[in-house]
Amino acid sequence: MIRPAAPEAAGEQPLAAYLQARRAEVEDALDRYLPVTPDCPEPLAEAMRYSLLAGGKRLRPVLTLATADAIDPDRGAALAMPAACAIEMIHTYSLVHDDLPAMDDDSLRRGRPTVHVAYGEAMAILAGDGLLTEAFRVLARWPVTDDPAVVDRKLRTVERVAAGAGAGGMVGGQVLDIQPVDAAAARRQPAAARAALRAMHERKTGALIRAAAGAGAIMAGADKATIAAVDAYAAHLGLGFQIVDDILDVEGDTAALGKTAGKDEAAGKVTYPSLVGLEQSRVLAAGAIGDARRALRAGGLKGGRLAAIADWVLARTN
Amino acid sequence: MIRPAAPEAAGEQPLAAYLQARRAEVEDALDRYLPVTPDCPEPLAEAMRYSLLAGGKRLRPVLTLATADAIDPDRGAALAMPAACAIEMIHTYSLVHDDLPAMDDDSLRRGRPTVHVAYGEAMAILAGDGLLTEAFRVLARWPVTDDPAVVDRKLRTVERVAAGAGAGGMVGGQVLDIQPVDAAAARRQPAAARAALRAMHERKTGALIRAAAGAGAIMAGADKATIAAVDAYAAHLGLGFQIVDDILDVEGDTAALGKTAGKDEAAGKVTYPSLVGLEQSRVLAAGAIGDARRALRAGGLKGGRLAAIADWVLARTN
Repeated sequence: MIRPAAPEAAGEQPLAAYLQARRAEVEDALDRYLPVTPDCPEPLAEAMRYSLLAGGKRLRPVLTLATADAIDPDRGAALAMPAACAIEMIHTYSLVHDDLPAMDDDSLRRGRPTVHVAYGEAMAILAGDGLLTEAFRVLARWPVTDDPAVVDRKLRTVERVAAGAGAGGMVGGQVLDIQPVDAAAARRQPAAARAALRAMHERKTGALIRAAAGAGAIMAGADKATIAAVDAYAAHLGLGFQIVDDILDVEGDTAALGKTAGKDEAAGKVTYPSLVGLEQSRVLAAGAIGDARRALRAGGLKGGRLAAIADWVLARTN
Repeated sequence: MIRPAAPEAAGEQPLAAYLQARRAEVEDALDRYLPVTPDCPEPLAEAMRYSLLAGGKRLRPVLTLATADAIDPDRGAALAMPAACAIEMIHTYSLVHDDLPAMDDDSLRRGRPTVHVAYGEAMAILAGDGLLTEAFRVLARWPVTDDPAVVDRKLRTVERVAAGAGAGGMVGGQVLDIQPVDAAAARRQPAAARAALRAMHERKTGALIRAAAGAGAIMAGADKATIAAVDAYAAHLGLGFQIVDDILDVEGDTAALGKTAGKDEAAGKVTYPSLVGLEQSRVLAAGAIGDARRALRAGGLKGGRLAAIADWVLARTN
């Protein structure tokens, strides 16, 4: 595994180089962990690879690795790499299912036709189911070890990731997102609308981002207090990420985003810009990133790349 | 937990009473393990409960418990109950997704409207995703213990269940099942058609039945040789179960089955009766159940209910 030089010394290696190196490792590992056995029918393997190996920011797996790096610079990332891949497999399955005609009915993702456009709706449902299930196989199987301490970390990671991805987390957030919104009521009661929007995002986007960081912390052997600090950091980071996402949906263009821009407004969705305007959305995003940085300092997690990643989430353009 | 009297002494308590007692325990446990936290949106909890708590044979979780009983009559079933529930959650999610309009497009299941008919297609996709994810949370979380031996069993169970349910198992089988079949080619090359049918069923139905028994064996602390014997038993049992399923689709009636009878023929699906006729299908089913019994004897697993369960699978009428 290629390790960037002195990852704990922020400033030595520019963040962009760190992200690029970690992303390249994630791409390699995803390619290795995807099922290639004769037991997996070829059309399924193809649809899963199509969706998973289409690039993307890889924010979540890089966050898992950066968290593990911050806690155990020597072994953290190696221990956490399977979890990083599992998180990205779960994120990808959620995109495949979200894009389905019965859900958001989107035809473009990561700059390419969505899975149901390329392979049909049935295969898209099954490719998503396969990615989700294989993610848990990856978590349980790798790293291969008899060390009871690492076995214990792996099992806690399974539970942490399932909680973040499940009915009380990401899937629950998606359910909140497809509930019909009464736009007139939202205008009459903006505070309630903003609380509802935040509750939806905390589950739909935030829960898996928290699980990504949490998995890195657990696999690297963090103690309870550090895991809690990482969780607070990731909760703020997730909120900031989502507000920026809403802003980019208004300001970005489809080519740079790799997904359809302007679809929130077209779908009549409540977003931060629609509730509080673009300017105030930017203030809220910057506030969330500031909170994320403060959570790191409060938890004694000053080393590593986590603060720089928070800044990058705020400044990103795609 | 209610334990049937002397479960290891086959003959003392009729199988029907054993099945009924174990089923009742499974129903209770499923009800307990489903998410009821405020984090899970109510419409999602309702759709998940609707599909999961609709009765059914509960073959798979009972098989998990019976296997655990056969290996450790004192503690096996208690250790394996969460895994039994997780397996049933995974089986139920697969039914919910299989019934979707883009898949089998079925409107009746377990005697009630399917989930997408009752709650809409988007909610059915998400309820399935939720059940699958929560299944892994249940596997990782319960039984709550610090005992490193049980932690190790739980992690191996996660891996075993994910392998059975994933791209090389159940999901892969569903992909094979939706591939178009060339009926004329099947008539010209019956041996190849039968091999393809068996390969599909080994994954679509067999893989999760094997994982159900395997999870019971692992959680009860079976050694490698015993786990292999249980796996051989369950592979034969799964084949017999599927052939009987095909026969019942021809001979059964919709009311008794709780799902639409005759749908294989209506869909032009290749089945055991369509390939080899009803009489020969019955011979094959009886042969598979005989093989399952032999695998038990070869593995020294004579006690317990596993042989009686094999006979019940052959004789079932729904």
